[in-house]
Amino acid sequence: MAVIGASKSRDFFFVKNHQENFVGDLYVVHPSVKQIPGFDDGTKGKIYKSVKDIPDDIDFVFIAVPKSQILSVIDDCVEKGVKLASVFTAEFSDAGTKEGKELETNLIEHAKNKLRILGPNGMGLFYPKLGIAWRPKFPNTPGNVGFIAQSGGICNIAIYASQEFGFDFSKVFSFGNGADLDFVDLLYFLSKDPETDIILGYIEGISKGRGKALQRVLELNNKPLAIVKGGKSGKGSLAAKTHTGTMTGEKKIWETLFKQYDVIEVESIEQLLTVARLINCYGSFSIKNIGILSISGGYGVILVDLLENFGMRVPQFSKPIQEKLEKKFFTRGTSSNNPLDVSAQIYDSESIYEIIDIALSDNKIDSLILDLPTWYFNTDFHIRENKSFKPTIIKAFGLGHKHHKPLIPIIQRVNCPEVRIKTVRKLNEKRIPVFGDPLEFIPLLPKISKNFKVMKKRKEN
Amino acid sequence: MAVIGASKSRDFFFVKNHQENFVGDLYVVHPSVKQIPGFDDGTKGKIYKSVKDIPDDIDFVFIAVPKSQILSVIDDCVEKGVKLASVFTAEFSDAGTKEGKELETNLIEHAKNKLRILGPNGMGLFYPKLGIAWRPKFPNTPGNVGFIAQSGGICNIAIYASQEFGFDFSKVFSFGNGADLDFVDLLYFLSKDPETDIILGYIEGISKGRGKALQRVLELNNKPLAIVKGGKSGKGSLAAKTHTGTMTGEKKIWETLFKQYDVIEVESIEQLLTVARLINCYGSFSIKNIGILSISGGYGVILVDLLENFGMRVPQFSKPIQEKLEKKFFTRGTSSNNPLDVSAQIYDSESIYEIIDIALSDNKIDSLILDLPTWYFNTDFHIRENKSFKPTIIKAFGLGHKHHKPLIPIIQRVNCPEVRIKTVRKLNEKRIPVFGDPLEFIPLLPKISKNFKVMKKRKEN
Repeated sequence: MAVIGASKSRDFFFVKNHQENFVGDLYVVHPSVKQIPGFDDGTKGKIYKSVKDIPDDIDFVFIAVPKSQILSVIDDCVEKGVKLASVFTAEFSDAGTKEGKELETNLIEHAKNKLRILGPNGMGLFYPKLGIAWRPKFPNTPGNVGFIAQSGGICNIAIYASQEFGFDFSKVFSFGNGADLDFVDLLYFLSKDPETDIILGYIEGISKGRGKALQRVLELNNKPLAIVKGGKSGKGSLAAKTHTGTMTGEKKIWETLFKQYDVIEVESIEQLLTVARLINCYGSFSIKNIGILSISGGYGVILVDLLENFGMRVPQFSKPIQEKLEKKFFTRGTSSNNPLDVSAQIYDSESIYEIIDIALSDNKIDSLILDLPTWYFNTDFHIRENKSFKPTIIKAFGLGHKHHKPLIPIIQRVNCPEVRIKTVRKLNEKRIPVFGDPLEFIPLLPKISKNFKVMKKRKEN
Repeated sequence: MAVIGASKSRDFFFVKNHQENFVGDLYVVHPSVKQIPGFDDGTKGKIYKSVKDIPDDIDFVFIAVPKSQILSVIDDCVEKGVKLASVFTAEFSDAGTKEGKELETNLIEHAKNKLRILGPNGMGLFYPKLGIAWRPKFPNTPGNVGFIAQSGGICNIAIYASQEFGFDFSKVFSFGNGADLDFVDLLYFLSKDPETDIILGYIEGISKGRGKALQRVLELNNKPLAIVKGGKSGKGSLAAKTHTGTMTGEKKIWETLFKQYDVIEVESIEQLLTVARLINCYGSFSIKNIGILSISGGYGVILVDLLENFGMRVPQFSKPIQEKLEKKFFTRGTSSNNPLDVSAQIYDSESIYEIIDIALSDNKIDSLILDLPTWYFNTDFHIRENKSFKPTIIKAFGLGHKHHKPLIPIIQRVNCPEVRIKTVRKLNEKRIPVFGDPLEFIPLLPKISKNFKVMKKRKEN
């Protein structure tokens, strides 16, 4: 690959970022720069005046040149046989001017359908498997989640957040103005991409005439797909227009489209990442009847209310399971009903492990939600010393995988947040999705569950 | 104060916890224990067989004796002239048995209206000013937020969370079965308590015949009051019955009551703490027209949608302000419209300070919401070195106080969570409420605002 347009004033930002992890040969194209500290002192022969001068084949280029040079750079790339270009250069249709729009049309014409373009006015491609990354310290481990957004800023947030949400990206596209490859093309690509199992998208609007194509792609796609539609409110629509120059269309049209094609529509980037976190941990799931294990009766009551409010059910355990559970509760103030109230028995982590194992074995129960404030993971706060507490509880939290049912712990954000970070990382490694607040994920459970049911049907047909 | 019923098997848990911070003289009452390591080796004369033997006056006792001894202990306390008792001992009406109920009635009769009781089956009183605390490492700094809940578990979560939410408690009551002092009494107390400015409550239900009294107290109260009503769903109601033995009553009755008396009704403990965080930082506020400053155009669009969806408005800035703002934007890709899109200009923190100052000076704008992912507070991720970035941004986040308008930053939970913890603590010190996810606080803004408007009217009358 080559970075075209190394900027000394930006301290060769894009060169350095791609240099960090790129697994192939990285070249730089610049008309005057002769050396870049830490990259090439001028003796290694990695800086060229034109992409055409590079003695190697070039598959991919990242272009950040002034817009006055863009057309000749594109011509060079076409001549060189480059396959894909990320065009960071801006002030095309995004500028809202006639000249900008014309330049964008010219850009596409010059690419001659040989060079495919991400952008202009976008950050392009993040592909951890090959170490293609536009910002420093992007995660370098490839995952199975794909993401598409116009906005580079949104992509940055998602990419830097992914590992804290317990997953990695396969590929992320910031397609900017989408002059060539747009949301529809990239969605089609990810739906066919063997490296991608879950697709996330942030979309503000699509160009006129692309509606039918979007419908076709949505119909073909059979991977879990979650989308935030920006600009649904009247004012949001105006803001989106300022942001990318696209019309965001009617709220209702989008909602109908998403409903028809089982798109998991969510309201924020954080919810988008949460959908990926849950499906990455447990695959697509459909849950309705939920067990709760709480160390505080009151917190359990709140969880019941929230779940019922979002259309879930918290039924009694079945008779034989109930009988088995009763035998495992031996501390005053506990309850073996659903919600299970373990109270001070929490310190007897071996019995908690058994209780969770029994509860999940109930055919009536699709999923188990637990809550445990962070301080239980900090021995300074323990009533009784029990060195096996932490490992046993973490092992117990893994029982969802044994029973193939989503087990979702809430570890409340209370004191000792540093301890929480470590605990969450440990649980992330074991693909156990942790939350700090029930409202982070409970509203999403019916959306994910509904989606899966329809998908299952489609596969059966 | 005295702890009555030191339990060796619990490693004298309640003695040690109260010993940690209690500012007065702490005594222990136990029929056989003669020394407690670290508290009294038997020579200091702080352990007595009966509360009556203590040579000092006793105002408050924490009682954790077997239920068979409770009545004689209560008799002793009445004789001694103790004013308030927290009764941790359980299996009274909470046991759901006739015997339990009778014992509870006897308990109250023995107290003869001289000794007031918190409990039984509760954790009683947390009062940081005097260091009265039932668990280890409770914060020892007094604040201005009061909290009332039956459930000790809920109180523990709130107390251990408060400092991460940027506030401290004045007093917390876990009243358990509420045999004597109940939700209504304690709400009345906090509404008159000069040490309490904001009141939070978790309530599952109230006893028959206390409805009118609750109404009277709600009418008298003129402090911001936020409540979670547990057991609103049918199943939640059943769970609450198991938990505390109270009937949770009809959902509609509660909703009407809360609406009538301007109670901020929320759905979770986390929302309850968030209401306190916001009001603790900015006092009671009423906001409708909101400015947004975002480093990502897309994130700004999502914030507009969320705010409009919850009944807020994101209007254009007024003409003169707009003109002033335009002069402060000089980087490509930025926008001086609302939402302000600062893009890469974020690194020029001095201009960001000025932009925030100008935006908040607009009479059309009641509040400013900002978003900045955590990595901007980590210099490893900076494009340009700017040592004054962090202090200038934190100073800028304080501009809400200068303009007496709520400025609310979202610092997204992305990578480097350890940096986030430090930043949040710094902002907590300056009474700037930080969130990680817009859905944590946006749904609460109209509830707080509505409440305030009615309160203001009431005061004017």
